[in-house]
Amino acid sequence: MFKIPPHQVAGHHASNGTLGPLVDDSGRFYKPLQGDERGSAEFEFYEQFSSNAEIPDRIRRFFPVFYGTRVMNASDGLEHPHLVLQDLASSRTNPTVMDIKIGSRTFGPDASNDYIAKCLKRDRETTSIRLGFRISGLQVYVSEELGFYKPHRDLVLKSSVDDVKLLFRRYVSSNPSDSNPDYALAPNVYGRPNGILAQLLELKAWFEDQTIYHFCACSLLFMFEKAMASEGAGSNAQVKLIDFAHITEGRGVIDHNFLGGLCSLIKFISEVLEDPDDHKTREGDTRESTISVDNGH
Amino acid sequence: MFKIPPHQVAGHHASNGTLGPLVDDSGRFYKPLQGDERGSAEFEFYEQFSSNAEIPDRIRRFFPVFYGTRVMNASDGLEHPHLVLQDLASSRTNPTVMDIKIGSRTFGPDASNDYIAKCLKRDRETTSIRLGFRISGLQVYVSEELGFYKPHRDLVLKSSVDDVKLLFRRYVSSNPSDSNPDYALAPNVYGRPNGILAQLLELKAWFEDQTIYHFCACSLLFMFEKAMASEGAGSNAQVKLIDFAHITEGRGVIDHNFLGGLCSLIKFISEVLEDPDDHKTREGDTRESTISVDNGH
Repeated sequence: MFKIPPHQVAGHHASNGTLGPLVDDSGRFYKPLQGDERGSAEFEFYEQFSSNAEIPDRIRRFFPVFYGTRVMNASDGLEHPHLVLQDLASSRTNPTVMDIKIGSRTFGPDASNDYIAKCLKRDRETTSIRLGFRISGLQVYVSEELGFYKPHRDLVLKSSVDDVKLLFRRYVSSNPSDSNPDYALAPNVYGRPNGILAQLLELKAWFEDQTIYHFCACSLLFMFEKAMASEGAGSNAQVKLIDFAHITEGRGVIDHNFLGGLCSLIKFISEVLEDPDDHKTREGDTRESTISVDNGH
Repeated sequence: MFKIPPHQVAGHHASNGTLGPLVDDSGRFYKPLQGDERGSAEFEFYEQFSSNAEIPDRIRRFFPVFYGTRVMNASDGLEHPHLVLQDLASSRTNPTVMDIKIGSRTFGPDASNDYIAKCLKRDRETTSIRLGFRISGLQVYVSEELGFYKPHRDLVLKSSVDDVKLLFRRYVSSNPSDSNPDYALAPNVYGRPNGILAQLLELKAWFEDQTIYHFCACSLLFMFEKAMASEGAGSNAQVKLIDFAHITEGRGVIDHNFLGGLCSLIKFISEVLEDPDDHKTREGDTRESTISVDNGH
């Protein structure tokens, strides 16, 4: 009945003996509650958010539905409490997915010195400080025969600024692993009235105003189905917010760290739409991108 | 001919034997070039910016005019090279001034570990990390008799989030040092089609798009003349960008750190206009604000 999520591209992975999320056939996603304050922070966020009348419906749709908690036999063979969430990939056949951790800073103002040092090191090693976000993982569906283009997460995290530019183009290409990706799906996935860019702009307008939450170290998840995007079914492209273990109260201040990173991301996506052929490197980075085509999972 | 700028509220101050900026009677501001890479970075910025055809006029007006450099006898009695800039206060009689350092992070991605540690400590001790900016200093003209309300810079830097909220209200009050400031000038200074809020929104639109410069550790300077603001002369309120010693190239990426802080500042200013009577503390901070009325200079 429970299985390892087939389309997860970042975060903890379940395996035999290792704790990680599970999904079932009814469209639910079971996320083990981290045993420290992170787990309780995420649980409290979902519970508080579910009943918060200040969240407009046009914003609520960006969040996974929360079904409560459940103690269950987990992937490591032990009983653990889990968050029960909507499985965002359950209605999809071959989802093309990207996970982007937003914010140039992944620690909150009240974090400990050790935690700050750890996060800052990671933020400097990845593109977070430079871009205001980092790509944590992605998979791009190619075909039944070839499966997914899915570069290894460690390589994705080592991306340079130019690698990130190229990944946003690969993400909407029918030949993602090619040295000259075609961006064929960009207008239908990034563009259109309800495409990814329009959804990001909707989120941006909310973040310019909302002072309820600071979404520290959260991710944006992009998803679409290649078959539908090729036919021009724009509503099939989705943006979701996930991972709320480090969320804090806004206390009257906007989340300028998330908003700045979101604006930077919007600029990158806009550039793919405005100028799809400009994938030239600006910093003389002429490394070949590391490509792996993962045939199925 | 040269004198110490009478209306400087932050930054290095000149005095007998101490190096700092000077002004003359012709409206020029002489800023000693810092002897290390900061001085050359600021000079290079001004020189490059002056001739950069990519900067629209509506944005150029936010920057001091640059007149070159000049070696001159400085306030410490020695010869030093100086940047020759427009004296932003020269046309003003009793300017009400606020200096706000923008950005939750005041170091660039390529800074040294020591410099990062120093900046991060300061960003955490002030409101920078929490708000995306910190007030570095201010003076509010009260009357000929009472002079200026000018809290000490060290106290301003120690402001809590609620102190900052109150300072934005004191800044546009005819009784700034009062425990219940009246915000009488808010509509004419923050509001109006060319008031401070409108100017900040113009800057924001540019920062959402421009990828030329990253304005690390820069300040926004607000200025207005009380006598004119009381009569409703809106164009008298000015926003300027100053202090470019830590500017870096944007290399195709927006300045998400500055933009996030700017959006946070815009939210604070908007709230004074929308809801002028809400200066309640949110974090239980009931300290009396430290008040000093500085009669002249």
